[in-house]
Amino acid sequence: MFEYTTPLRLADTDAAGVLFFARQFDLIHEAYEGFMRSVGFGLDRLLHDESFFISIVRAESEYRAPVWYGDTLRIALDVERIGQSSYVIAYTIDNGRGTVGTARTVHVCVGRESKAKRPLPAGLAARLAGHLAATS
Amino acid sequence: MFEYTTPLRLADTDAAGVLFFARQFDLIHEAYEGFMRSVGFGLDRLLHDESFFISIVRAESEYRAPVWYGDTLRIALDVERIGQSSYVIAYTIDNGRGTVGTARTVHVCVGRESKAKRPLPAGLAARLAGHLAATS
Amino acid sequence: MFEYTTPLRLADTDAAGVLFFARQFDLIHEAYEGFMRSVGFGLDRLLHDESFFISIVRAESEYRAPVWYGDTLRIALDVERIGQSSYVIAYTIDNGRGTVGTARTVHVCVGRESKAKRPLPAGLAARLAGHLAATS
Amino acid sequence: MFEYTTPLRLADTDAAGVLFFARQFDLIHEAYEGFMRSVGFGLDRLLHDESFFISIVRAESEYRAPVWYGDTLRIALDVERIGQSSYVIAYTIDNGRGTVGTARTVHVCVGRESKAKRPLPAGLAARLAGHLAATS
Repeated sequence: MFEYTTPLRLADTDAAGVLFFARQFDLIHEAYEGFMRSVGFGLDRLLHDESFFISIVRAESEYRAPVWYGDTLRIALDVERIGQSSYVIAYTIDNGRGTVGTARTVHVCVGRESKAKRPLPAGLAARLAGHLAATS
Repeated sequence: MFEYTTPLRLADTDAAGVLFFARQFDLIHEAYEGFMRSVGFGLDRLLHDESFFISIVRAESEYRAPVWYGDTLRIALDVERIGQSSYVIAYTIDNGRGTVGTARTVHVCVGRESKAKRPLPAGLAARLAGHLAATS
Repeated sequence: MFEYTTPLRLADTDAAGVLFFARQFDLIHEAYEGFMRSVGFGLDRLLHDESFFISIVRAESEYRAPVWYGDTLRIALDVERIGQSSYVIAYTIDNGRGTVGTARTVHVCVGRESKAKRPLPAGLAARLAGHLAATS
Repeated sequence: MFEYTTPLRLADTDAAGVLFFARQFDLIHEAYEGFMRSVGFGLDRLLHDESFFISIVRAESEYRAPVWYGDTLRIALDVERIGQSSYVIAYTIDNGRGTVGTARTVHVCVGRESKAKRPLPAGLAARLAGHLAATS
């Protein structure tokens, strides 16, 4: 499990006084970017690789409790599933008083020239496998 | 069906050259805000109502094709389902070359004091019913 | 003068209940993108041009009155100054009750290979000149 | 001097491949929020205080060099000036290869009921004074 901790930022809130729902996706992606750096596949490397890129094809969030300015968020990230050419990341967000939200993103590996799905690079698949959720 | 049209903004893109996935949620929410104004329940009214508010409890997006700067997006919005205390909005996003994404948000009516689910105000339920998707 | 009108979006507000200061820069840039399209230099063209790009080297905003959700903003855009290799755009933002903010952005033309300042393309300079503020 | 360090996030970039200019304001505000927490005036406290709030009346940024995804930003924050009812914060942003940008925000203390400028609370003025830039 990978963890990312951040105070909620004022920019993440809206006039209802709490986290704006779309910003939860920004927050989990920050966790994902940190995770990818930690396994040696920082997105800067992926942005510039000649042969493939990784695309998000699906994203979902649930919201269980309001998140207020002043809260510090702990985002726990697990690799939920690894397929031939895709993987699923699951996120649980806690503000110290309990789980306030969960999320999931589905990532697909695409050949940069073919624009078609292709198998995950072996190195990446191996690193992701090291973080497969215990329950998967 | 309600429609919202907007050019993609540079702020919606990222270094991969296309729409950043989280911004799709910003875009559909803009469509939703316009829709709610059109049915007489602009979010300013909801923000300040004494008795209830509407909370997003779930949001999901699918991404089918890259969206480039220069694209103009047409977002079609339908009410997919109306329950006792909740409703589901579905979105289809088209960039003129076809459907580039879909999304769905689930909204729950909450009593401002009770903090508990409560029935949708009759006026709101009636206006939403007028936009129920034909296929529902 | 070029005008851009938009309702304030919930995503533009923060927990203080009003426009988050940084979002004013997003809003004026939307106006700028519309203006550039209107003079035939849409940013998609600039993003992909082989020989030059336009960089923002300075941006400033003033905030005169709170902007609330529910406000519709009218952003008036003028070309304030055109230099050899740069230009200045000025913005005035009105919410129907008066001017709520002003802003200014300074743009420099840079050779894509040289990475050095270079003269504005003549076509662009001519189009900008057509929108020079009367008072300049 | 107060320092805040963060990797650039993909959400901060745009299709030109670099930091989107408006996001520089988001980044300096994150630094500011951390600074205010560090002096005991976290913005959550200011948001809920009965008697006053702090408003940004001016913000400006300069951009000296492109900031790329993969860069880690170090933002140095100084209190540049303290007045009767206002203060100025200055920011310098470094990506490890040099200064990539600078910024400045001007903050005014406003009575929550009077909506008029009022003197800074003594406690806040004292804490800010402890961080006055050496050169001021």
